Amino acid sequence: MKLNRSHRLIAMTHYLLAHPHTLVSLSYFVDRFQSARSSISEDISILKKEFPNSNIGSIETVAGASGGVIFRPSIAPDQALERVQALCQELTDNDRILPGGYFYLTDILGDPDHLRLIGQIIASRYREAGATAIMTIATKGVPLAQAVSMYLNIPFVMVRRDSKVTEGATVSINYASQGQSRVEKMELTKNSLGEGEKVLIIDDFLNGGGTITGMLSMTKEFNATCVGICVLAEVQNPDREVAFDYQSLMQVVKSQDNTQLVEVLPGGIFDDHD
Amino acid sequence: MKLNRSHRLIAMTHYLLAHPHTLVSLSYFVDRFQSARSSISEDISILKKEFPNSNIGSIETVAGASGGVIFRPSIAPDQALERVQALCQELTDNDRILPGGYFYLTDILGDPDHLRLIGQIIASRYREAGATAIMTIATKGVPLAQAVSMYLNIPFVMVRRDSKVTEGATVSINYASQGQSRVEKMELTKNSLGEGEKVLIIDDFLNGGGTITGMLSMTKEFNATCVGICVLAEVQNPDREVAFDYQSLMQVVKSQDNTQLVEVLPGGIFDDHD
Repeated sequence: MKLNRSHRLIAMTHYLLAHPHTLVSLSYFVDRFQSARSSISEDISILKKEFPNSNIGSIETVAGASGGVIFRPSIAPDQALERVQALCQELTDNDRILPGGYFYLTDILGDPDHLRLIGQIIASRYREAGATAIMTIATKGVPLAQAVSMYLNIPFVMVRRDSKVTEGATVSINYASQGQSRVEKMELTKNSLGEGEKVLIIDDFLNGGGTITGMLSMTKEFNATCVGICVLAEVQNPDREVAFDYQSLMQVVKSQDNTQLVEVLPGGIFDDHD
Repeated sequence: MKLNRSHRLIAMTHYLLAHPHTLVSLSYFVDRFQSARSSISEDISILKKEFPNSNIGSIETVAGASGGVIFRPSIAPDQALERVQALCQELTDNDRILPGGYFYLTDILGDPDHLRLIGQIIASRYREAGATAIMTIATKGVPLAQAVSMYLNIPFVMVRRDSKVTEGATVSINYASQGQSRVEKMELTKNSLGEGEKVLIIDDFLNGGGTITGMLSMTKEFNATCVGICVLAEVQNPDREVAFDYQSLMQVVKSQDNTQLVEVLPGGIFDDHD
């Protein structure tokens, strides 16, 4: 009996972690474990208490015939801040400054531990935003979008700057890049996004905001709405004012001539207490 | 006491799932839960038994002063096959045939559930390969590489076909594409891969094998070795013989003139019993 409960708690934890933001019926667990509904209910009570205690997230119970439980991952703000501070420290290196105002982040974007952390933080912040899809731009936004997608359990779509023959029909728009000085094209496969989707826009680095303004136009082309914008890092005091609301995980502070790195600080996502 | 055990089992399950293929010392759990070493050892015995029972993977115990536990995720072959058969069914649609011999897979590459499944299957197959890094080509290989990276807990690097100013120095090679008829370029950021890395190559779709041959050359440029090649889907009876060993999750069977889809079948990864 004790063993059965242990077995169920381990298996249920595993199952819920792999199915975040999804209504799982009690009957699913009753069938799977061949256990009484009352035992499963007791298991759920334990999980409901221990998930927040262990900083995993919360479990909601939905009553009624079509009821069940929903696991919503979240990370405690103090733990998130502490780990991002460590990441900022790791990024504080003049070699990361690249020509053209960019900042080298590619190693972070291929690291599974960093991606898990970033995914958890962004998914925690936007867990109530009601997003139905994530939009990002290839290539470097993709790992971030995917990490968030795993924790919010909604799909992501990849906008691309280059046209490919391997995609079928696409919708393409023009946008102003690098301080309005250059017009570029971005495109998205036509059946990537449905009508009326609620889109969370994710990108790796925000300087002038041209790419994100482009993605906002793309959203309109698909008759979708944007419910949030989040970037991994932004430049403090960018060359231009940005015309949209967004959150960042980190702020990169560079010298006035943009050639030296002064500091990397936690971003606005940690100031926000709504 | 019973509650403590439940708490620990849930928290340890969560922690191990987030740290696959990583040696976690018993002391970490002793400190975290303020529990006796004997209680933690008992918890580990329970996890060691229930992880395989619940089809989560295996837990190895490493003895000695620097010892601890290592969680190795795996998916049961019959469960993997069953779910891939369902995916094959979902993909059996003539609209997926694109001009140029390609097959539309982009919706799969943005779906968190499918990516979890694919990541688990590939990571199970290559769990003993000793890979230290995953290599893929942008854009469509990236979600697959990341999914595998999450379960193998090794970083992934993104080879690109286009040059970007936002990356720093890159190594670039030329490769023959589309049946040797066109020479293209691919490049990888110089400090992405260290000397002597063991690389697992991942891509979305295999037809002639030009892109993967290119990635093999890239591996050599970095003095790395390739320990495995895996693709999500391959064309059955491709236009050309492929000159390397690989595994696929699915085989796409098209009509002789390449314009009609006949069938989508589970790939060679399921035949392999070594």
